[in-house]
Amino acid sequence: MTKLIYVLNGPNLNLLGTREPEIYGRETLADIERLCDDTAGAHGYEVRFLQSNAEYELIGWIQEARGSAEAIVINPAALTHSSIAILDALQAFEGLVVEVHLSNIHKREPFRHLSYVSKRADAVIAGCGAQGYALALLHVAAKRG
Amino acid sequence: MTKLIYVLNGPNLNLLGTREPEIYGRETLADIERLCDDTAGAHGYEVRFLQSNAEYELIGWIQEARGSAEAIVINPAALTHSSIAILDALQAFEGLVVEVHLSNIHKREPFRHLSYVSKRADAVIAGCGAQGYALALLHVAAKRG
Amino acid sequence: MTKLIYVLNGPNLNLLGTREPEIYGRETLADIERLCDDTAGAHGYEVRFLQSNAEYELIGWIQEARGSAEAIVINPAALTHSSIAILDALQAFEGLVVEVHLSNIHKREPFRHLSYVSKRADAVIAGCGAQGYALALLHVAAKRG
Amino acid sequence: MTKLIYVLNGPNLNLLGTREPEIYGRETLADIERLCDDTAGAHGYEVRFLQSNAEYELIGWIQEARGSAEAIVINPAALTHSSIAILDALQAFEGLVVEVHLSNIHKREPFRHLSYVSKRADAVIAGCGAQGYALALLHVAAKRG
Amino acid sequence: MTKLIYVLNGPNLNLLGTREPEIYGRETLADIERLCDDTAGAHGYEVRFLQSNAEYELIGWIQEARGSAEAIVINPAALTHSSIAILDALQAFEGLVVEVHLSNIHKREPFRHLSYVSKRADAVIAGCGAQGYALALLHVAAKRG
Amino acid sequence: MTKLIYVLNGPNLNLLGTREPEIYGRETLADIERLCDDTAGAHGYEVRFLQSNAEYELIGWIQEARGSAEAIVINPAALTHSSIAILDALQAFEGLVVEVHLSNIHKREPFRHLSYVSKRADAVIAGCGAQGYALALLHVAAKRG
Amino acid sequence: MTKLIYVLNGPNLNLLGTREPEIYGRETLADIERLCDDTAGAHGYEVRFLQSNAEYELIGWIQEARGSAEAIVINPAALTHSSIAILDALQAFEGLVVEVHLSNIHKREPFRHLSYVSKRADAVIAGCGAQGYALALLHVAAKRG
Amino acid sequence: MTKLIYVLNGPNLNLLGTREPEIYGRETLADIERLCDDTAGAHGYEVRFLQSNAEYELIGWIQEARGSAEAIVINPAALTHSSIAILDALQAFEGLVVEVHLSNIHKREPFRHLSYVSKRADAVIAGCGAQGYALALLHVAAKRG
Amino acid sequence: MTKLIYVLNGPNLNLLGTREPEIYGRETLADIERLCDDTAGAHGYEVRFLQSNAEYELIGWIQEARGSAEAIVINPAALTHSSIAILDALQAFEGLVVEVHLSNIHKREPFRHLSYVSKRADAVIAGCGAQGYALALLHVAAKRG
Amino acid sequence: MTKLIYVLNGPNLNLLGTREPEIYGRETLADIERLCDDTAGAHGYEVRFLQSNAEYELIGWIQEARGSAEAIVINPAALTHSSIAILDALQAFEGLVVEVHLSNIHKREPFRHLSYVSKRADAVIAGCGAQGYALALLHVAAKRG
Amino acid sequence: MTKLIYVLNGPNLNLLGTREPEIYGRETLADIERLCDDTAGAHGYEVRFLQSNAEYELIGWIQEARGSAEAIVINPAALTHSSIAILDALQAFEGLVVEVHLSNIHKREPFRHLSYVSKRADAVIAGCGAQGYALALLHVAAKRG
Amino acid sequence: MTKLIYVLNGPNLNLLGTREPEIYGRETLADIERLCDDTAGAHGYEVRFLQSNAEYELIGWIQEARGSAEAIVINPAALTHSSIAILDALQAFEGLVVEVHLSNIHKREPFRHLSYVSKRADAVIAGCGAQGYALALLHVAAKRG
Repeated sequence: MTKLIYVLNGPNLNLLGTREPEIYGRETLADIERLCDDTAGAHGYEVRFLQSNAEYELIGWIQEARGSAEAIVINPAALTHSSIAILDALQAFEGLVVEVHLSNIHKREPFRHLSYVSKRADAVIAGCGAQGYALALLHVAAKRG
Repeated sequence: MTKLIYVLNGPNLNLLGTREPEIYGRETLADIERLCDDTAGAHGYEVRFLQSNAEYELIGWIQEARGSAEAIVINPAALTHSSIAILDALQAFEGLVVEVHLSNIHKREPFRHLSYVSKRADAVIAGCGAQGYALALLHVAAKRG
Repeated sequence: MTKLIYVLNGPNLNLLGTREPEIYGRETLADIERLCDDTAGAHGYEVRFLQSNAEYELIGWIQEARGSAEAIVINPAALTHSSIAILDALQAFEGLVVEVHLSNIHKREPFRHLSYVSKRADAVIAGCGAQGYALALLHVAAKRG
Repeated sequence: MTKLIYVLNGPNLNLLGTREPEIYGRETLADIERLCDDTAGAHGYEVRFLQSNAEYELIGWIQEARGSAEAIVINPAALTHSSIAILDALQAFEGLVVEVHLSNIHKREPFRHLSYVSKRADAVIAGCGAQGYALALLHVAAKRG
Repeated sequence: MTKLIYVLNGPNLNLLGTREPEIYGRETLADIERLCDDTAGAHGYEVRFLQSNAEYELIGWIQEARGSAEAIVINPAALTHSSIAILDALQAFEGLVVEVHLSNIHKREPFRHLSYVSKRADAVIAGCGAQGYALALLHVAAKRG
Repeated sequence: MTKLIYVLNGPNLNLLGTREPEIYGRETLADIERLCDDTAGAHGYEVRFLQSNAEYELIGWIQEARGSAEAIVINPAALTHSSIAILDALQAFEGLVVEVHLSNIHKREPFRHLSYVSKRADAVIAGCGAQGYALALLHVAAKRG
Repeated sequence: MTKLIYVLNGPNLNLLGTREPEIYGRETLADIERLCDDTAGAHGYEVRFLQSNAEYELIGWIQEARGSAEAIVINPAALTHSSIAILDALQAFEGLVVEVHLSNIHKREPFRHLSYVSKRADAVIAGCGAQGYALALLHVAAKRG
Repeated sequence: MTKLIYVLNGPNLNLLGTREPEIYGRETLADIERLCDDTAGAHGYEVRFLQSNAEYELIGWIQEARGSAEAIVINPAALTHSSIAILDALQAFEGLVVEVHLSNIHKREPFRHLSYVSKRADAVIAGCGAQGYALALLHVAAKRG
Repeated sequence: MTKLIYVLNGPNLNLLGTREPEIYGRETLADIERLCDDTAGAHGYEVRFLQSNAEYELIGWIQEARGSAEAIVINPAALTHSSIAILDALQAFEGLVVEVHLSNIHKREPFRHLSYVSKRADAVIAGCGAQGYALALLHVAAKRG
Repeated sequence: MTKLIYVLNGPNLNLLGTREPEIYGRETLADIERLCDDTAGAHGYEVRFLQSNAEYELIGWIQEARGSAEAIVINPAALTHSSIAILDALQAFEGLVVEVHLSNIHKREPFRHLSYVSKRADAVIAGCGAQGYALALLHVAAKRG
Repeated sequence: MTKLIYVLNGPNLNLLGTREPEIYGRETLADIERLCDDTAGAHGYEVRFLQSNAEYELIGWIQEARGSAEAIVINPAALTHSSIAILDALQAFEGLVVEVHLSNIHKREPFRHLSYVSKRADAVIAGCGAQGYALALLHVAAKRG
Repeated sequence: MTKLIYVLNGPNLNLLGTREPEIYGRETLADIERLCDDTAGAHGYEVRFLQSNAEYELIGWIQEARGSAEAIVINPAALTHSSIAILDALQAFEGLVVEVHLSNIHKREPFRHLSYVSKRADAVIAGCGAQGYALALLHVAAKRG
């Protein structure tokens, strides 16, 4: 049976490729989804790739992943820095959690340095652009076999 | 001509495999060096893999990498949080800088949350254990061709 | 005419009984709803028991309670610490507000110590587990007759 | 072709006129919408006037305004102080942004002094009550012609 | 054998009913003692109800409760915010600890927001006035049988 | 009898039009005075338009306005962030106070975020450039008739 | 009937005259008591002059003064900076409260700058040495007649 | 030869009697000058009583007092909290310095708690209203003979 | 004549041996008193060994030691972190002061890191368990002969 | 044509030579003016040497220097730490700005560590006493030729 | 076989006896080494006594002590407050760690109050001068037999 | 006999002329050494000019300068902000200490504003580029003759 990985994307990531490309790069979210499918497929994983501007939808997907997915790869975008509810949802998830950011958030404004998600995330990959998603999936594959 | 990547390791990483393995994993630094050689070699890169407990030696190696290396992959260990001198040396380096941590430092004690190196690093990979070095090299290969 | 109390539950409380039971206990939200119905009923109150992962739904229910309910018993979960919008909604409510937490949030991580809801709540009951809801309803009954 | 301005209103502003009138005044949101239509119309603008208690809807409208509107006039209400996601959405908008508050938030509780939206807003008008919206539209008309 | 609960009251609570009744209510401490006796008695418990303006006496009573009482219900009043010695005494007590405040201390001056006692208390009930004591005893009865 | 409005300008505003035009715009203070005269005149107000680099002169003018003016429109410039004496003078003034800033001070350096004047100002208009003065006068006219 | 003033002295003031005389002066507490008797007597007041190293005794005396004394003159010594319980007791006192310190506490170590007692005290006299008590009594006489 | 005391008054004190009388009392500055003349005269002192809204004038008077006056009694008003220049001037004065405030500044807004003047003042008298000046002069007379 | 050392113990130390033995060890206070007697006796000193839960008693004993004892060895327990009154009492003592803690307080909760007593103590010995008292006495013997 | 340098001196520097000579040295301001004339003259510069206790006069001179002077050498004294208005004036000056302090302000009280002027100053010379002015002029001569 | 204790000394301790003797005492490091040899020898221990100004050498010696020594007694001097690398090295050491300081660092400048080493050290002895080393060795002997 | 001055340079200054020339200028360290030799020679001084990336070497040179040099001119570079060990070494040096920075560190990132070296340095010269060294030597010559 194919194993499942959730790849979750937070607010405004639907604008990727057009929004502040000097920070976030020129790939669109569809490009990244394709990259994820390819990378995961090559290691026998299936990806459920989702984006929402709504915190509650992200929470719902994390809850859905419980018991069904090996790992969650999450780019919480702006919610990284303010959502304790996403942290709580992730703490109820038993698998691997990898936090991804397109830019290196620690080089940016101070209010982007705190990550509530990191209090639960097993790993963090930041500043690798779209490729960061692929690296995160490679890490899941290496860790979960 | 083979392209060069410096992989630099800070204080106490010579103890890897024996020191607090529940945090840092069981691979030794020699294991990681082998992993780096293999990963880099597969992409046409040569690795200069070094460790020191002395800040000045790390600074010297970063200065040496100027003009000769494509990228620096650095795990500054405890110096991450206190060495402005390493930051300054990196700021004089023109290539790609990837910061690697074996553990997710943002889950640990508050004094491990601040990274001076991140003020210069293009990317950060934390919490992926030894594999983090391989992911960093893959990122260099992808970015620098 | 039966008097009404809103009992509102914030993000992730739908997972109760399975999520971190050592912190939140083993009762499910359905168990708690039953407990609330019984307790309120015994004092001549009807309970409108609701849960949402979405801040906006909680705000909507609080607005709905204006003019129709005697009291709001609210466990805002993670939103306790970040939602000024819920505070503002409660400030527009003229009845009694009782804040409930399953665990004693003041024993937990520092970011769980600040409660925006407490700036409006008449009373707070924390750390009594599921029974906290019943105690809150008893308090409403005592205060509002 | 008529030029467009989005006028966006955050959580609880649907209660205007009834909620804490000593702070927020006695005009309803419908009154303000009428005022906006009149003011904008007089300067050849059309207004898209919207309110939501949900952050994601506000984000959606801001994204929708990209490429179609001259300006966004936004009263983010409680989200002013906590929503980095709205800030990010505004940063992807190329037009004029005017932040409006009914009350002078800098006279109120300290947690209402920080505005994430101000990190992007071109102008701020606070404490002018309902008229603040009209002043904001006059400013847009003056700036954008 | 009747089971015992200590109900301890800190400085100035002997003034209850006369001191700042708009904050603390109009019941006297004798009224509260009667309420406690009744509530506890109805559940087969005996109450040892004590008040002191002296930190050392409160510490002495907490030490006395070790090995002899099922629970301590404590309203530490002003000492809530400054007495680490009471916290230390409670940490040596093996039973249930319920912290009670007549008012919701989190709505009051910032220096009343920190509770050292909460670092040990299993539960906190604040803002329920005199009834808070009864709710605390009900909680003890429910928890300890 | 014509009603009076004081329009007060703090340090360095005499340089307007030449000093850092990318922040403060290209209008001179004389341009702004003309704009104020026109706007106020159209609503039956007379303006007393003054500028000083000296805190004591500003204080004197505010004291002078007591009992004689309907409103004070004040751009305290750098004194915004440090002058408690101007705040105290304004607190002795019984009319409307509108604080104006040419730029949005909340987008600038952190030491420009605190406004002592806002602790008294009824309204704040920032980032509207020279037009901000006109908007302020419109607001006075609307509020004071 | 002679009117009564309580003059209360906190910890270590029994050592006056011998303890760090360069800070606290050379008068003993008996000297100060005599000075108080003389000053108060000259204005038709009787003084109840008390000292204790115990917070609870000071609280007791403040409670005792309720309903019987015109004023409390209090030098809380070290308890100034830490006793919320004394503040609470004073808040239950309806008369005039004057806080006295022998030295100017605002010139000393930072931990001596915060005074909980000042949150209630009508007046503060610091740095006048023993004479500060006499000035405080003169103030009571002037205020209460 | 008559000995001299400077009594200096900071910004807005010229408004005394009319400005916020519930905080500052109903005596005018002329009343206070008369009180000072009387009190000082009774002890063989002459008073030089001055007020200014300008920091530089206060500094000038303090410099003038060097070598000619026994003491400076100063109510720096709003400058208390911000003027290091007045502190520096006082540090160049060799006589007694008594700081006076009409209200107890430590009960007011936090930004009124810091006094730069207190870093030099020998004594502080706050909250005694106009009488505070007389008490300060009595203290000078007692200290300087 | 035998020389005297006061060994003072703060709140809850009477519980030693039973309270949180993993932190405080298994020796009782009586064991420690015996150890102190033996160690001091071997160097020609007599020990006055006292414990109290009351700050005022500790203050009283410190005052008593003035002029009669060579040194005070004090384990202030929880009062370490909050009692300025004990600090003031110690500052009036002319002999050697050694602060002892059973555990290394700097490894524990942040609120146990600040020691008011250390602002006076000549030496600090922490984390040596019961033996810390003996080491303190050896230090006194070495220093005072 | 002789080139011009403004040398500006802030509050209390007119007292130089008599005020706290252990901090500020024994040269008078006249001595320093002579030193400046000599040093500047030797490099073909003329000096306009001014002192004021008034912030507004310093601002006026800085504004006057615009377009007419090569450089401003400024010792803002106490205004260093509080005057944003002087900073703003300097930011409108296009030439070289050198900040001079007689003492090393970073060794002194913490409130003397922050310099608003340094946010604009090209260079800072502190702790060189009167000679610091000469060094500053040498620097101007070297930089501006 | 003789058991081994490392006694490590940080930067500038080679100057002991000449550097600031009023803080650090008059014994030289050679005196302290002799004292350590004698004390340890008397309890059947051998001491390896080392000093370095280089953090990396201290780290090297700590690593060397792993598996070979019973305990490390370390006076990290200035590195106490900044070296996380030494803390990390100590955390890889399995024996007893005793931190020694010649002076009581908690009485000194605030930046000397934080000890990273204390986060690992089992015990701390500060302010006992050279004798502190001997006490530390006695403690090791008592603990390790 | 020629008098000696140590001129010490911290980490990364060996890169001068190539590293971030817009901040640090285009002179190399060899250029600066020549400038120092010339300037010092002209005043009868000999310079010992040294650079190291290692803190311990800088400490060693400072210790070496004790008793042999008139002054130390030190540019500690990144160690300015973190090395307490260099501060301690300088505190053991009896001569003049001048701190030099090529750029004005107070205009740069906040973490470059704190200088531990300034707690000892007699003078600071920052932002004068390479000439700053010459000015420092002139100051030594003027001060030490």
